[in-house]
Amino acid sequence: MLNKFFNPDSIAIVGVSLEKEKLANQILKNILEAGYRGKVFPVNNKATPASKVRSLKVYPNLKEIPEKVDLCLVVVPPGAVLSVIDDCADKKINSVVVITAGFKETGPEGARLEKELVKRAREKGIRILGPNVLGIIDTHHHLNASFAPTYPPAGNIAFISQSGALGCTALDQFPLEGVGLSKFISIGNKADLDEVDFILFLKDDPQTRVIMCYLESIERGKEFMKAAKEVVKEKPVVVIKSGRSQAGRKAASSHTGALSGADEAYEVAFKETGVIRVKTVAEAFSVARGFAFQPPPRGERVLLVTNAGGAGIMATDACEDYSVKLATLSEETVQNLKKNLPAASSISNPLDILGDADPERFKITLKEVLPDPAIDAILLLVTPQATTKPKETAHVVCEVYELFKQREKTVLTCFMGGEIMQSATTVLQKAKIPNYNDPDTAVKVLRSMIDYSKIRVGRKEEEGKVFKVEKSKIEVILKEEKEKGYLQIGGAKALEIMKGYRIPVVENYLTRSPEEARQIAEKIGKPLVMKIESPAIVHKSDIGGVKVGIKPDKVEQAFNEIMENAKKFLKGRSDEIKGVSIQPFLKEGREILIGAIKDVNFGHLIRFGLGGKYVELFRDFSTRLVPLTSSRVLEMIEETKIASKLLQGFRDEPAYDVELVKESLLKLSQLVEDIPWIEEIEANPLLVYTKGGAVIDARIRIAKEE
Amino acid sequence: MLNKFFNPDSIAIVGVSLEKEKLANQILKNILEAGYRGKVFPVNNKATPASKVRSLKVYPNLKEIPEKVDLCLVVVPPGAVLSVIDDCADKKINSVVVITAGFKETGPEGARLEKELVKRAREKGIRILGPNVLGIIDTHHHLNASFAPTYPPAGNIAFISQSGALGCTALDQFPLEGVGLSKFISIGNKADLDEVDFILFLKDDPQTRVIMCYLESIERGKEFMKAAKEVVKEKPVVVIKSGRSQAGRKAASSHTGALSGADEAYEVAFKETGVIRVKTVAEAFSVARGFAFQPPPRGERVLLVTNAGGAGIMATDACEDYSVKLATLSEETVQNLKKNLPAASSISNPLDILGDADPERFKITLKEVLPDPAIDAILLLVTPQATTKPKETAHVVCEVYELFKQREKTVLTCFMGGEIMQSATTVLQKAKIPNYNDPDTAVKVLRSMIDYSKIRVGRKEEEGKVFKVEKSKIEVILKEEKEKGYLQIGGAKALEIMKGYRIPVVENYLTRSPEEARQIAEKIGKPLVMKIESPAIVHKSDIGGVKVGIKPDKVEQAFNEIMENAKKFLKGRSDEIKGVSIQPFLKEGREILIGAIKDVNFGHLIRFGLGGKYVELFRDFSTRLVPLTSSRVLEMIEETKIASKLLQGFRDEPAYDVELVKESLLKLSQLVEDIPWIEEIEANPLLVYTKGGAVIDARIRIAKEE
Repeated sequence: MLNKFFNPDSIAIVGVSLEKEKLANQILKNILEAGYRGKVFPVNNKATPASKVRSLKVYPNLKEIPEKVDLCLVVVPPGAVLSVIDDCADKKINSVVVITAGFKETGPEGARLEKELVKRAREKGIRILGPNVLGIIDTHHHLNASFAPTYPPAGNIAFISQSGALGCTALDQFPLEGVGLSKFISIGNKADLDEVDFILFLKDDPQTRVIMCYLESIERGKEFMKAAKEVVKEKPVVVIKSGRSQAGRKAASSHTGALSGADEAYEVAFKETGVIRVKTVAEAFSVARGFAFQPPPRGERVLLVTNAGGAGIMATDACEDYSVKLATLSEETVQNLKKNLPAASSISNPLDILGDADPERFKITLKEVLPDPAIDAILLLVTPQATTKPKETAHVVCEVYELFKQREKTVLTCFMGGEIMQSATTVLQKAKIPNYNDPDTAVKVLRSMIDYSKIRVGRKEEEGKVFKVEKSKIEVILKEEKEKGYLQIGGAKALEIMKGYRIPVVENYLTRSPEEARQIAEKIGKPLVMKIESPAIVHKSDIGGVKVGIKPDKVEQAFNEIMENAKKFLKGRSDEIKGVSIQPFLKEGREILIGAIKDVNFGHLIRFGLGGKYVELFRDFSTRLVPLTSSRVLEMIEETKIASKLLQGFRDEPAYDVELVKESLLKLSQLVEDIPWIEEIEANPLLVYTKGGAVIDARIRIAKEE
Repeated sequence: MLNKFFNPDSIAIVGVSLEKEKLANQILKNILEAGYRGKVFPVNNKATPASKVRSLKVYPNLKEIPEKVDLCLVVVPPGAVLSVIDDCADKKINSVVVITAGFKETGPEGARLEKELVKRAREKGIRILGPNVLGIIDTHHHLNASFAPTYPPAGNIAFISQSGALGCTALDQFPLEGVGLSKFISIGNKADLDEVDFILFLKDDPQTRVIMCYLESIERGKEFMKAAKEVVKEKPVVVIKSGRSQAGRKAASSHTGALSGADEAYEVAFKETGVIRVKTVAEAFSVARGFAFQPPPRGERVLLVTNAGGAGIMATDACEDYSVKLATLSEETVQNLKKNLPAASSISNPLDILGDADPERFKITLKEVLPDPAIDAILLLVTPQATTKPKETAHVVCEVYELFKQREKTVLTCFMGGEIMQSATTVLQKAKIPNYNDPDTAVKVLRSMIDYSKIRVGRKEEEGKVFKVEKSKIEVILKEEKEKGYLQIGGAKALEIMKGYRIPVVENYLTRSPEEARQIAEKIGKPLVMKIESPAIVHKSDIGGVKVGIKPDKVEQAFNEIMENAKKFLKGRSDEIKGVSIQPFLKEGREILIGAIKDVNFGHLIRFGLGGKYVELFRDFSTRLVPLTSSRVLEMIEETKIASKLLQGFRDEPAYDVELVKESLLKLSQLVEDIPWIEEIEANPLLVYTKGGAVIDARIRIAKEE
């Protein structure tokens, strides 16, 4: 359906100037220069029958064009865009690129106009790319419908950019990186079509092997995740998501007017879907080039081959930094290498074939290691020493590589240096062997490729467990609170809500008089924790509203003291006090935190980690997006550095009830999925014992509107 | 004194081949081609009076050379090197470069030969560079006494390399990086001269502004630190220290035969001296180029100027990643920019002058911001958009920069892209404005430059506090233990040693009978901790050798039980049991760890952090090298994420006795400085209260030899 954007039989450009070299004329020029084979119809509302631009007849409007138009590029002032859309509808053009800027990114007035534009397009069955975009490039169809100053060579990397400027930057970089472009899509304000649509489209594009994106926001978070999971099974997706920092996000929203949400949500979304996130354009190209040229490794075992000890050390450091496993050469290979290499060579990993290695020695070595079944990937490190012949070495590498191509080993090289090495780089590029200037970058790329192989094999996508819970009862409770204007819910009420979803909570009794309190205390028969219950009091302990370790015989006195403190604090508004809640004082256990917070784009993030008073100090958390599944929960727990080890039993300690934690997380996930207008929910601590456990304290924040 | 290595009036090359193009001939060729102005004397022991190489007379040995020789390059087989050294002595040559490989790096036999070489040289007053080196380059003296395949242009960056191959790599990279070399020194096996000598030499070299190093080990750690502190005051030192990882260190020691020590020691040493550590050659060049071209910023306030929102966001992200502060434009600048820039510009930081910015707009902007006193550094981000004129923009940048040069603002640029941007890069390089391809790299360089400015202003180097301690008594105790063969010291003895250095320890009584134990217990009058005292028992609690919370009336029984358990464990060797030590059971406090471990190169590392049972789980440590000073101790404490916050009083908690911790660390530093054959010492926990505290448990490991 998006095919007409990339392979139209005819294009109209509305807004071509009859006099000056304006933006639309630049686009027209690009279209003609790229060798587009379809028809092109420039449009200008002041055109006369004799008007021509670049030898093409200019039409006064779309209607006058005597033939069918597949794609319309709109380059008129913002105020005139709507009427062009109407014209497109009349002319039965369904694919429209609105190049024009001056919409959402300029403020409320522009946002209003943009909304109207989308509404109009939807009514008429038109799909819009833009507004505020650079345009579209499809090298395989010789289409350059953009005003980008560079038209890269054809290749298999697609690029989607939310920023026109970053688009230009990357396009300009393709030739230097030695890679080619399949399709470029500038998505700008994404009023209608966005990254979700295009990654899905590119999934089935035979010319595209890698999808690279520059994004500042992903508004359709859940749709993105669903799409990305599908796409990643077919081809890698490499994303620069800028606005990682608080300040960067602020800068981003003033740039495209996009609400970009918390970076943590993006981080989790990318991790869960297998999208490869990078920080810089250079990094994006490094990774993309690896995938564009080579198959991802079948396993994790990497061999380093080098003519320099120092390079080997640096690569080994990098392997440890990125947890890349060093292969162990199989015995046969070791024996053969011993026979054929100088005695001083280090036949190990790194495999050091010495500084005086000539092309022949590289050949001998590669012929031995390339077929070795104990190796999944090879990184060849070459330094320019006195007797090194970089270009010849590169030729030899390509030759041997070709010989064993069917083995599908991943081969990367690192011809380190500058001028001398450039001749080698060209040779390697032609043979589709990705070359990097330093071992760190090469190993990082390998890490990404190994990760991709693993994720593509696929995580089992089990269904989430469904617990029998009291959904409607809990919904009623929350609605009541909301209606009373209590958007922050704590104390007994919060515990009750958790309990309704079968999350274990401490016994909790709301008492309204000293006598009632004493009766409850005697029933419990253990030291107690007593807390004021009032939606108007958030920090209970600060106002003397909490007492811990109270024996049953002191309960009445404690009740009265707590009430007095609360009344004093509330200055007469004592109708806000519901009473004093009483809990048994539980013995010490592992203090765990579980919680959820709603992200504006991706929905609820579930958090697990070390709980208790020092939560913010330890910051030992892991995060996932709902819905959770058993295997996700397991990952979450394992991901924490401290909490996981404490739960599994540190050293001589017993193991704690991890099962209870897992189930509680799944139940929490079900809760926020059932009642999505919960903005935030947190149980801290969830006290966990070797068997059993209970939430001691919880708080919930709900949205004003459901 | 090292001057003759770089600026010799005459050079002899011993080992030039009369027939083939061997290594020495390659060096000779390099010397001649670089335009060396002094005299060159090739030497070959088979030379006849008629022998010539490259039109130069070849001498059969050094003695035959009729003139004075300043520098001798030795390129004979390893076995022949010693006699050449003798010849050098006879000829009064004090500066010798042993190019020849085949020494320490090949194994014990080579190591022996290398030792002999150094001994011989020292006896004769000869300084040796090498063996196993690439040679020396001094571009300003037109000297290329190396077999490196590249001779870079002259400039102000010096490069010291422990690896010849990495040396070649970097030399080859200079032209591409647009920077020039002052001196290159391949230090190889560093049998005599090493990095310490050369950084000190380069400190006073007027041609060198930045010192770049590739190192795999620093054997003279303490001397390096002293030297580096001095050098860093004059010029920045940028170091790649490879072998960061365990595996990388293993690879390193098989490479140069160097004992490289723990990476933590290097990390601390670099931090304490202000040496800038980088991971890759590319990073080293990025940082070196910044310093080579620009003054380090006077303050921390950085302004981002851009023609692209996306670039601004990426740079803002990077600023947050590297904690670089964004400047706030002064009011006057804001007003002037408002007058002169299009209304849609974002006059903030990032300062976005919009995608259609022409060179004139860049000019207007820079003229306003360059003199603004609220700004210390400017990073200009330019993307190649349709109307961008990169080369003209670069010219404008250089022009305005020149205008305000005396203000000493640091100016970096980021002309992002590929082919289109290359013309701009050349222009910027000529004007000494360092240009980077992506904002991340540029901001990282700024971070290094800001750090350097701070460290150069200088930390106060106070004297360490000296405490009155019982040094000789403690020395005697340790010697006694050593003589008895007890290299692991724990229990009462370890506490006694700490106490001798005035580190507060828990009251501890060694009792030898149940009666004595009871008497002590009654004196203490509180619950007790009882522990077996035996140098033969390390894990006391595992064998039932520890009892906690014992009341005085149960002490005799506990004593007997502990003794029985110990006897059972020692199977009759009950002479190894010294008794049972008794301590009062202390109330809970903050559990802190202090300790020291000796590094093979740098001496003792002092460690501070969160203590107790979960030490390894939390890994909340900071480390410094001895001697500690008050300000270093303060840094150490502040550097920890958790321990510092817990000690200063978290939220509503009281502050703990930080003074006690500080003093204990200083005393520990004094202890290991006084008795350097302590290999390891650790107090865990040091229980700290709001006032006071005490070490509960300690262990010490001493060296077999002092």
